[in-house]
Amino acid sequence: MIFTQKQAFYSTIVEESLANSIPIENPYYIRLKEAMLYSLMAGGKRLRPSLALATAEIFEIEPREVIAFACAIEMIHTYSLIHDDLPAMDNDDYRRGKLTNHKVFGEAMAILAGDALLNLAYETMIKDALTGNSMAKLKAMEVISRCAGSLGMIGGQVIDLNGEGRRVDSDELKAMHKLKTGALIKAPVEASAIISGAGEKEFAALSNYAANLGLAFQIKDDILDVEGSMEEMGKKPGSDAQSDKSTYVTLYGLDKSKQLLQDVTGEGIAFLADFGSRADFLRELATALVTRSN
Amino acid sequence: MIFTQKQAFYSTIVEESLANSIPIENPYYIRLKEAMLYSLMAGGKRLRPSLALATAEIFEIEPREVIAFACAIEMIHTYSLIHDDLPAMDNDDYRRGKLTNHKVFGEAMAILAGDALLNLAYETMIKDALTGNSMAKLKAMEVISRCAGSLGMIGGQVIDLNGEGRRVDSDELKAMHKLKTGALIKAPVEASAIISGAGEKEFAALSNYAANLGLAFQIKDDILDVEGSMEEMGKKPGSDAQSDKSTYVTLYGLDKSKQLLQDVTGEGIAFLADFGSRADFLRELATALVTRSN
Repeated sequence: MIFTQKQAFYSTIVEESLANSIPIENPYYIRLKEAMLYSLMAGGKRLRPSLALATAEIFEIEPREVIAFACAIEMIHTYSLIHDDLPAMDNDDYRRGKLTNHKVFGEAMAILAGDALLNLAYETMIKDALTGNSMAKLKAMEVISRCAGSLGMIGGQVIDLNGEGRRVDSDELKAMHKLKTGALIKAPVEASAIISGAGEKEFAALSNYAANLGLAFQIKDDILDVEGSMEEMGKKPGSDAQSDKSTYVTLYGLDKSKQLLQDVTGEGIAFLADFGSRADFLRELATALVTRSN
Repeated sequence: MIFTQKQAFYSTIVEESLANSIPIENPYYIRLKEAMLYSLMAGGKRLRPSLALATAEIFEIEPREVIAFACAIEMIHTYSLIHDDLPAMDNDDYRRGKLTNHKVFGEAMAILAGDALLNLAYETMIKDALTGNSMAKLKAMEVISRCAGSLGMIGGQVIDLNGEGRRVDSDELKAMHKLKTGALIKAPVEASAIISGAGEKEFAALSNYAANLGLAFQIKDDILDVEGSMEEMGKKPGSDAQSDKSTYVTLYGLDKSKQLLQDVTGEGIAFLADFGSRADFLRELATALVTRSN
């Protein structure tokens, strides 16, 4: 299957599973379900769950074995976007071309919908772990919980928060990106590798690939914030400059950032050498992220 | 050991464990740790973790077997208070006689500290489950995740949100309390019973006890909001009336609410009959909650 077909195939599986993931039936608070689904089904690249499915496929593991974990990571990603967009945080009105959650459902509901998605991520993984392969899934949950928490994504969000309105050096910027974006891109690859029974060396190679992918993803985001357009991105570009945030572009300039993006992506792909054609999707994904326009 | 000594003993174990529960060392965002600890160590009755420890003791299970889960539930409780106090939610300036989290650390940090505590709760349970008794602990996590999520506490918070500014009937009020407060009081008892290897009949009895305890707790809260004082409660009484919320007192009046509180407590204690003196702490706890002044 060619790359774009595969990507569509993964997205379809993920969307179907996400659409049926919220167990609320109680009429007293059906609006919570609407708020959760609004952001969960708002499109997006489904990058993280696709990484989980593609990693499993390297080991000839069926999508159904990792789909719960793939969706859980997308729930975590989605909750973080809802909370990030809040007036007290980035105060964004648009996300993926749609009004942000709090703009539609109000701030209180957006806070609770975010909380509920984070909790649902764990609920989903725990239930799945009880159906079999429990110890591997428990280990995969350990990776995800670390990557999502104060030692991972949330830590990065706090560094980001501290950095607004002042210049930060490259060490702090790297630490921020590694945690804020990198951790949750590493998580689906590592978790899926564990569930799929990857050996130590295979795990390390995939983990290194994912670390580079995460860094490349962030550099590209910083470039797009300067070069991208509202139509293509579905949100306002230039928001980093507006809040006076340090980015790869403010730190290294546009040309050096683009070079860095190429280098980091190449290094990432090199880690996949031992997997041969089984890692084609992961290779093409890395290349596609470099050329994306949103 | 008499009740108050036992209560102090449980609190000490819990406080010690909570104080060492946050793994952040990264100097770039040490303030997140401060924000998390600020609310986590702000005192309170430690009702939920004490319920977990006391339930384990019925089965002669050591505190160390359930302390991680006891603390995790307290983290979940604490995150929900931080988010509840936010300007977009209840907009409270004081909690337990101290400024609320966002008043000290700002709204953005309070949102993230809450998120981080919810995530840490799962991180803590997952790590503990990997050390042994894994399947029972996975089942206990399933109970906790259901009680904390959209089918439990968060669902109740949303019903509460919907109810502001309008009268709700007794069915909706009961549904709200069962979820908002009840679920997270049931969770430590049920989770601890599972980890401790309780039989089906024992589990049902403890679960019923906890359901009544949760209801009694909420009725008492509603009474205190009318009769309590700022000094004793550490927060402003009358906040329910101010936001025009329906409560047991607005629905049934003060006298009937007090009678209901006695009845519900008595019924809860009756479920403990088969445990004899091993359940003394749980019995006295139920009685103490009726007479509490904060």
